[in-house]
Amino acid sequence: MTTSALSPLNATFKRLHHFSHLASIAGWDQAAMMPSKGNEARAAAMAELQVLMHQTLTDPRLVDQFKTAGNADLSEVEQASLSEMRRDWAMVNRLPQDLVEAQSLADARCEHAWRTQRRANDWQGFLGNFRDVVRLARQEAKFLADASGCTPYEALMDKFEPGMTEQAISALFGAVKTWLPDLISKVIAQQQSETVLQAQPPFAIDKQRALGVAVMGILGFDFEGGRLDISTHPFCGGVPQDVRITTRYSESMFAPSLMGIIHETGHARYEQRLPRDTLYLPMGRARSMGIHESQSLSFEMQLGRSPAFLQLIAPLVQKHLGAQPAFEASNLARLFTRVNRGFIRVDADELTYPAHVILRFEIERALIAGEIEAEDIPALWNSKMQDYLGVDVAGSFDNGCLQDIHWPSGMFGYFPSYTLGAMYAAQYFATIRKLHPDLDARIAAGDLSPVMNWMEANIWSQASRWSTDALVTRGTGEPLNASHFRQHLESRYLK
Amino acid sequence: MTTSALSPLNATFKRLHHFSHLASIAGWDQAAMMPSKGNEARAAAMAELQVLMHQTLTDPRLVDQFKTAGNADLSEVEQASLSEMRRDWAMVNRLPQDLVEAQSLADARCEHAWRTQRRANDWQGFLGNFRDVVRLARQEAKFLADASGCTPYEALMDKFEPGMTEQAISALFGAVKTWLPDLISKVIAQQQSETVLQAQPPFAIDKQRALGVAVMGILGFDFEGGRLDISTHPFCGGVPQDVRITTRYSESMFAPSLMGIIHETGHARYEQRLPRDTLYLPMGRARSMGIHESQSLSFEMQLGRSPAFLQLIAPLVQKHLGAQPAFEASNLARLFTRVNRGFIRVDADELTYPAHVILRFEIERALIAGEIEAEDIPALWNSKMQDYLGVDVAGSFDNGCLQDIHWPSGMFGYFPSYTLGAMYAAQYFATIRKLHPDLDARIAAGDLSPVMNWMEANIWSQASRWSTDALVTRGTGEPLNASHFRQHLESRYLK
Repeated sequence: MTTSALSPLNATFKRLHHFSHLASIAGWDQAAMMPSKGNEARAAAMAELQVLMHQTLTDPRLVDQFKTAGNADLSEVEQASLSEMRRDWAMVNRLPQDLVEAQSLADARCEHAWRTQRRANDWQGFLGNFRDVVRLARQEAKFLADASGCTPYEALMDKFEPGMTEQAISALFGAVKTWLPDLISKVIAQQQSETVLQAQPPFAIDKQRALGVAVMGILGFDFEGGRLDISTHPFCGGVPQDVRITTRYSESMFAPSLMGIIHETGHARYEQRLPRDTLYLPMGRARSMGIHESQSLSFEMQLGRSPAFLQLIAPLVQKHLGAQPAFEASNLARLFTRVNRGFIRVDADELTYPAHVILRFEIERALIAGEIEAEDIPALWNSKMQDYLGVDVAGSFDNGCLQDIHWPSGMFGYFPSYTLGAMYAAQYFATIRKLHPDLDARIAAGDLSPVMNWMEANIWSQASRWSTDALVTRGTGEPLNASHFRQHLESRYLK
Repeated sequence: MTTSALSPLNATFKRLHHFSHLASIAGWDQAAMMPSKGNEARAAAMAELQVLMHQTLTDPRLVDQFKTAGNADLSEVEQASLSEMRRDWAMVNRLPQDLVEAQSLADARCEHAWRTQRRANDWQGFLGNFRDVVRLARQEAKFLADASGCTPYEALMDKFEPGMTEQAISALFGAVKTWLPDLISKVIAQQQSETVLQAQPPFAIDKQRALGVAVMGILGFDFEGGRLDISTHPFCGGVPQDVRITTRYSESMFAPSLMGIIHETGHARYEQRLPRDTLYLPMGRARSMGIHESQSLSFEMQLGRSPAFLQLIAPLVQKHLGAQPAFEASNLARLFTRVNRGFIRVDADELTYPAHVILRFEIERALIAGEIEAEDIPALWNSKMQDYLGVDVAGSFDNGCLQDIHWPSGMFGYFPSYTLGAMYAAQYFATIRKLHPDLDARIAAGDLSPVMNWMEANIWSQASRWSTDALVTRGTGEPLNASHFRQHLESRYLK
C-alpha cells in the first residue's frame, strides 16, 4: 500500500533518471570528445533536454502525487525518499521554463568559448558571454531565495550542499583565516631547509596515462564500468554504471595528472559503489558535493599524498616513467607535500588550497548578492591573491579568474564544497585511524581495505539515505568538526 | 501565411531533431566508447528517448496540424517539406508504443551480446536474443504493411529506400545474377596470371590511423566537424554538424581500415555538406540509404580503388606505413581490385560484393515473410554461399550469418541499399566522366574538384528536396540504369 502511494512519483523520477543519463553522456562527450563545430547543435539539443526535464518536474499532476504520498503511511526509508524527491521538485518548480532554457544556452555558449578564451588570456571576450551567465544566475538565485526565505547565494549553494548556510560557511572559513596564513608561512620557512629532488621531464603522455590506469586499478576503479579520457578541466562524469573521469597531461609535469587521476578516482568509486536498486531515485544519489569532494580528497589528500601510499606506488611510478632518484618513496612524499604560493587552484597544494577556495567564495557570494559586477572580478581577484597568498596575478587572466570551469558554466555556490570535503575527509581518516592503529603499515603493504571498507559501509552504500549531518555523525560519531582538518594539516606539515 | 501554416509542424520536427541528436551521440558512444557495464542503463535511457520521440510524433494535435498545412497554399519547396514530414509521421503512427519500446530494448540487448557472441562463434547464444528481434520486426512489418498495402518486407525497406518495391529489387538482383557469376569466374581466371605483391605486415595501428586521417583530409573531411574512432563494426554516426566515423584495425592488414575509412568518409561528407538551414526538417536529411551508399561507394569504389586515386595516395601510404614494393601505385591498383571469393561482406571486393548482398536480401525477405525461421538461417546461408560464391562456411558462424551488425540490431531491409548505391555511384561517375574527359589525370594530380563539385551540386546540397528518382534524373539525365554498373565492372575488371 505504501509502495503504491509512491509509485507514480517513482515512475516520474525513473523517467528523469533516463533523461539525466543522456544529459550526462552528452555533457561528457561535449567536454572530452566533441569537435568545435558540434557545439551549437549540442547546446540546442541539451537545452531541449533541460526543458523536457523541467516540464517533467513541473507537470501539475505531481502536486497531487506529492500530496497523496505525504498523507500515506510510509516507512522511514520511504519518507527519506519522498523528502529527497520533494527537494528536487521544489527546486525546479521555483524556476520559470524560459529562464531554465536561457541559462542552459548561455552557460553552454560561455563555457565553450571559454575553452579558447582561457588559452588566449581573453578576459574582454569572455566578459561578453559571462555577463549573461551572471545576470541569469542572479535571476535564478532570486527566484529560489524568494521561495525558500534564504539568501540568494544560499539558494544556489543549496543545490550542492543542502542545509548549509552562508553564515556557517563564513564562520568556518573565517576561523580558517585566523590560522592558515601563519601555518603556510611556518611550513614554507621550514621546507626551505628540506632537500627535494625534482623529477626530470619529459614524461611521455602515454606513459603517464598507463601509470594513471595502474593507480586507478590499485584504488579499485572498475574499468568495465568506466573510462579515463582527456579534457581541458578534469572532471568525473558519466553515470554510476559507466563513470567517465578525465584528466589533462603535460609532458613537463607528472604530478598534476597523477594526483588529478587519484582525485577523480575518489569521485568515481563513490558513484560506482552507490546501491544499484535506488539509482533512479534522488535518495539513491551521492549525498552532497561536499561529501563527493570528501571522497576525492580522501583519495588524493588523505591517501594519495601520504608516505604510506607513496611507498606503495613508488615502484609503479618508476616502472612507467623510468627510474630516477626523485621517484624514491621518501622523495615523492616530500614532493607531494611541498607547499607553494601559486596561481592555480587545481595545481595548489593541500595547505594553500583553502585560500583559493575562500577567495572564490568571497567573490562569488558578492557577485550573486549584486555587491560587485562581473567586470570587478579581476581587480578583486588580484587583491585577494595578494592578501591571502602574497602573489601577484595582475593581467594574467588565464592564471587568475579564467582558470576554473565553474563560473563559465554558470556554477555558483560550489567552491565551498571543496574545503568542506577536505574537512570531512580529515574527520573520516581520524576515525579510520582510531579503528586501525596499523593503518599506515597496511596501506604501504597494499592493503587498502580499512579505508575502502569504511567508505563502502559509511558513505558509498548510504547514498542520500540520511542528511549530511546524520551521515557524518553515524560514520564518525560527531557532526563536522573542523579541528580534525587543522590537526591533520599540522601533523603532516609541521615537522 | 504559408509559413505560418507549417510552423507548428516545424516546431515539432525541430524538437524531434534535438532528441535525435542525443540518440545519435548516445548510440555512437555505445558503439565506440562505452564499457560493457554501461549497457543496461544506456539501453533503458535510449528506449525512453525512443518512447518520447514516438509520443511526440503521435501527439493527436499533429492530425489537425497536418490537415491545416495540407489545405494551405504552399510553395513547391514547402510541399516537398510537408510530404517528407508526413512520411515520418505516417511511419510512426502505424506503430503502437509498447512495440517501439520492446524493439528498442530487444535490439540493444541482442546487438550488445552479439559483440562478444560473434567473437565466440556462439550462434546458439545469439539465437536466444535474436528470436525476439525477429518476432518484433515481423510485428512491426505487419503493422506498417497493413496500413500502406505493401508487403511486410517492403514496409521495412521503405524506411531506408522510399518508393522501392520488392519486385523492382528482385528484378534488378535477378538480372545481376544472370551475368555476375560468369564475370567473377572470368576475372578470377584472368587474375591468376597477374603478378600482385602482397604488402608485408605488421602495420602499426597508430600508423594506419595517421594514414587514414591524411586520406580523409584529401577527401575533404572536416575535422572541426567530426572525428575518427574505433568500433567493432565501422559506421558513420553522430550528427551533420559533428560526424563520427569509425573503423577497425588489424596489424596484419592495412587495406580494410584504409578502404573502410574512405568508405565512411563518403557517408561523412554527405552529412557534413547537407544544407545547414533545413537540417532539422525531414526534407533536410539525406535522401535515402541507397543514395547514402552511393556516396560511400563513390568514394571507396569509383574513386578509392581507381588507378588515378591510388597514384595520388601511394606516397602517403609509403610515408605512413613505410616504403615497400607492394606500395607502388600500379601494384596498389592491382591489390585493390583483386577478386576473391570470401566469407566477409565488408572485406569483399567490388565484384563479389553484390553476391553477398543478394544472399542477404533473399534470406531477410523470406525471414520477414515468415517463410523461414531464425534457426533456418545458417543452413540457408551456407547453401547460398556455395551457390553464388562457391565457398563453404558451414559451422563458422562468425564468418557467416553472425558477421553483420544489421540483423542483431533489428535492421531488416537495408542490405539492398548497398548494391543500389553501387549502381547509383557508377551512374554518377559515367556522368562526371562525360563532363570531364580528363577526370583521371586531374584525380591523379590531386584535383578532386570535378567529383566533389558534382556531388555538392547534385547530391549533398539537395538533401531530400526531390524523390530518389527525380534526384538521380536531375543529376544524370536518367533514372537508375544498372547498365552503368555492369559497364564499370567490365571496364575495370576485364582486361
